[in-house]
Amino acid sequence: MKAIGFKQSLPIKEENSFIEFETKTPTPEGYDLLVKVQANSVNPVDFKIRQSAAKDEELNEPKVIGWDAVGIVESVGGKVSKFKVGDEVFYAGDITRSGSNAEYQLIDERIVGRKPKNLSIAEAVAIPLTGLTAYEALFDLIRVDPEKDKGKSVLILAGAGGVGSIAIQLAKKLGNLTVIATASREDTVEWCKDMGADFVINHHKDIKEELKKIGHSEVNYILDFVDLEGYWETMTEIVKPQGHIVSITGSNEPLDLNMLKNKSITFSWELMYTRSMYQTDDMARQHDILNHLSELLDDGTLKSTMTTQLDGFTVENLKEAHCIQESGKSIGKNVILF
Amino acid sequence: MKAIGFKQSLPIKEENSFIEFETKTPTPEGYDLLVKVQANSVNPVDFKIRQSAAKDEELNEPKVIGWDAVGIVESVGGKVSKFKVGDEVFYAGDITRSGSNAEYQLIDERIVGRKPKNLSIAEAVAIPLTGLTAYEALFDLIRVDPEKDKGKSVLILAGAGGVGSIAIQLAKKLGNLTVIATASREDTVEWCKDMGADFVINHHKDIKEELKKIGHSEVNYILDFVDLEGYWETMTEIVKPQGHIVSITGSNEPLDLNMLKNKSITFSWELMYTRSMYQTDDMARQHDILNHLSELLDDGTLKSTMTTQLDGFTVENLKEAHCIQESGKSIGKNVILF
Repeated sequence: MKAIGFKQSLPIKEENSFIEFETKTPTPEGYDLLVKVQANSVNPVDFKIRQSAAKDEELNEPKVIGWDAVGIVESVGGKVSKFKVGDEVFYAGDITRSGSNAEYQLIDERIVGRKPKNLSIAEAVAIPLTGLTAYEALFDLIRVDPEKDKGKSVLILAGAGGVGSIAIQLAKKLGNLTVIATASREDTVEWCKDMGADFVINHHKDIKEELKKIGHSEVNYILDFVDLEGYWETMTEIVKPQGHIVSITGSNEPLDLNMLKNKSITFSWELMYTRSMYQTDDMARQHDILNHLSELLDDGTLKSTMTTQLDGFTVENLKEAHCIQESGKSIGKNVILF
Repeated sequence: MKAIGFKQSLPIKEENSFIEFETKTPTPEGYDLLVKVQANSVNPVDFKIRQSAAKDEELNEPKVIGWDAVGIVESVGGKVSKFKVGDEVFYAGDITRSGSNAEYQLIDERIVGRKPKNLSIAEAVAIPLTGLTAYEALFDLIRVDPEKDKGKSVLILAGAGGVGSIAIQLAKKLGNLTVIATASREDTVEWCKDMGADFVINHHKDIKEELKKIGHSEVNYILDFVDLEGYWETMTEIVKPQGHIVSITGSNEPLDLNMLKNKSITFSWELMYTRSMYQTDDMARQHDILNHLSELLDDGTLKSTMTTQLDGFTVENLKEAHCIQESGKSIGKNVILF
């Protein structure tokens, strides 16, 4: 089968930042499905891993990354019960295994969902990783309850990015929260509103002042999809007592937790890979979440966040998709159709 | 009325570390009850505030602290609906107001509960502050569900202290968790077992090794009642993926949150005073929790954590109670009966 990978962590513009190669099509065992991949979408984790995984020395074999995928089940392992050959599926993968930048991929059925019927392949592949991340943050960690949380608010930092775009929709449609997103350009502001944000504030201005202007000087929940350290002090000030901050970004330096103490604040890390990485008992929760997202997309509650479609599974297109993602200015999701 | 307070933050052994004085009995308005105080119990917050509140200059009026109290409702404000004159009550107070080291005290009915009928005044006064802290940590923050959390474990750091003693009972009896407490002396180990701990491990030894020995190398939840910084690295290693750490202790330096990222860990501060300090919408939750604790004490599900009873509301007894608390070796709770 054909795959695209890298042996060295190189700037994306260099010739060998990605290389195409032939490799043996794997055989599924246990809970694994063998999926014939039809599309990928790219997330920040893609270029972060590409930039770091082979930084010190060249790898013997090319490393295949890529997580979001849509495809068709080609064959199944002996323990598989949720899918059968021919099923159309979508998933966000497992960071410990070979990725979806390949014609075929093995994937544990417990982290795979049914592809939304009413969406094109390209529209569908935009969803899994960001959808799982936003869903887990809102409903597994914060445990937003649309009844009990009536009238509560969430601030979404980086509303127009991949995760932000689906988080706005989920917070609004499923969480029934007042959604405040950050964006600074005319097109990103418009996009956030289109996703359903009640308010869009400019993160280049003073966030506290911007919040005051819209009558929400404090918020119950904050989803940080951009820069934990940079927003830390601001977040400690604008989060309401008993509030909850969730971040996906990581931090390079220790942070002063004491600033959150008097308000009894909760902080959570959301990493979509935790369940598969640690093979947690509730790993199949991702199967359920993906199927729920699928339903919500099919019935029109949610819409795809796909903005750019690149046609053809080529080194050139993968480089292009990474380029767009690395710019940090990407809106929604960038998709490669095989 | 008689009250005991301080004008200077002095070492407890100094003559004026506490002074007795006469002051006007206050009048209740709004949601306030005027309570004739019958007993106090002392917590670490008592000596922390005494040591810091008048450190720089002498106060004009003595500051009255003290939080845990049992007493009888003497009169009520116009908005009071939950209690009537003559009711026996218990509560943990409000850090922004004058304390319970006084013959009479004003207290908002929304943070007051019914005194357990089957407990003596001294037994009852041991409970409110520590009970609210442990209850909020387990059931409002971690949101332990005895059904869903079946088989899960909690590590309680400082099991024999005031909060630890009631937390062990609540985690076991209400949470149905496997409870591992830390203690190092023969009497504290015995006490933790008596409170219901399934295992007691020695915090002077390597916690990770101690946990391995009892077959629980990782735990789902950790309650830190002693030293967040000191245990930070250990906690990041022994907490299970998707686990939850709650601390009440504060930290003097920034902490490396990144160590918790791959496991998608949640960290919460629990401060029992948050609800009253910020007058949160759900402030009356403390009324409900105290009444629930009262029921559980009356029906024998929980038992009082009182260990030392000092008779008489005197400067001498208050100094003695602070002395015991400051030693850091206190087991359960120390009570002053008026």
